[in-house]
Amino acid sequence: MARQKSRGEAMDPQARKVEILNSAARCFMEKGYHATSIDDVARALGCTKGFIYHYYASKTDLFFDVHREGMDRLFAAVMPATQAVGGPLAVLIAMLTAHARAMMDHHAFETVVAQGVQIHRFGATTPDQRRTLDELIASRDRFEDLFKDQAHAARAVGQIVADDISIAVKMMLGALQWSIFWYRPEADDGPDARDRLAARMVTTIIDGVRARN
Amino acid sequence: MARQKSRGEAMDPQARKVEILNSAARCFMEKGYHATSIDDVARALGCTKGFIYHYYASKTDLFFDVHREGMDRLFAAVMPATQAVGGPLAVLIAMLTAHARAMMDHHAFETVVAQGVQIHRFGATTPDQRRTLDELIASRDRFEDLFKDQAHAARAVGQIVADDISIAVKMMLGALQWSIFWYRPEADDGPDARDRLAARMVTTIIDGVRARN
Repeated sequence: MARQKSRGEAMDPQARKVEILNSAARCFMEKGYHATSIDDVARALGCTKGFIYHYYASKTDLFFDVHREGMDRLFAAVMPATQAVGGPLAVLIAMLTAHARAMMDHHAFETVVAQGVQIHRFGATTPDQRRTLDELIASRDRFEDLFKDQAHAARAVGQIVADDISIAVKMMLGALQWSIFWYRPEADDGPDARDRLAARMVTTIIDGVRARN
Repeated sequence: MARQKSRGEAMDPQARKVEILNSAARCFMEKGYHATSIDDVARALGCTKGFIYHYYASKTDLFFDVHREGMDRLFAAVMPATQAVGGPLAVLIAMLTAHARAMMDHHAFETVVAQGVQIHRFGATTPDQRRTLDELIASRDRFEDLFKDQAHAARAVGQIVADDISIAVKMMLGALQWSIFWYRPEADDGPDARDRLAARMVTTIIDGVRARN
């Protein structure tokens, strides 16, 4: 009798890796890096531990790849928006809206990215792991810089006011990224609802709430 | 030869408990709930494990008390601001400023509160633990309600505009609370610098960044 292949094992190699990453993102989100084992990820995916070790030498490597994928997805969402038509402020708004939407679309991955920030700050890692983590955090800084550069451009033409661009961008990104704590994909009403939510989030951030006279 | 008393054991009971909570907040912040042991907390405090078990039956109870203390400190910071002079918007600004400052003053505790939100969402807990966690999350909701009520009051008199108060408040609080990921108490220049940072954060949130014509 032929051994029944699990879902993960039946797919082509690239699709397998995506399935592993999706499963791992969900496990790390739910239990955190420290309490998650390769066993948990295998169980959630319905495959063997060996199947995952074929792709990843360790849990840490797997965590790093989830983090990397989370950053890649943010860049992939926001980069097209940097080419939006309109002045610098219109581009900034398009970037923030794409970012807000990406936080919803890739909820588990972006939750893991936030965990990575804490591990970078406090984690006991090997020199090799440290190097990888430094790279991942550097890519976060580049991501933040995209918004800072755009905010500087918008300020240069008088479209935005902000004494301190660094603080302003931290408030904007923080407001969007904190959604990892309250956004619930399972209660979501689909892409249109996500777009409306993203638009409302960004309007509040750009215009504030004070009534204009 | 008399056994040398550790720092924790030499203090009065209330001060001891505060020392345990401070040490635990730091440990949970650094390693997360799952990877932290009572041993870690004892080692960080320079006391015995038994000393901590005298106050807390389990790591979970200790975690809950750190979470509770984190919420108490937020309420203690923000409640006086609800009595600030001026109209509803002035009060809202005072509350947000006090909140921003409290996030800096109690950085470790507020980081642990955020961990508690994730554990509430995903954690496997006993019915008793669940009840405690439900109460803690309910106190988070009451905290958010303070800001929603105030935002409604400000909107009622035309001082703020927001189609959706719930989203607007989530953006405000998220922007402030995301500071657990970037604020570094060890790089801090003291209370005045913290006040200036808090004021800048809140101005950005209330007024947004779009230039007013």
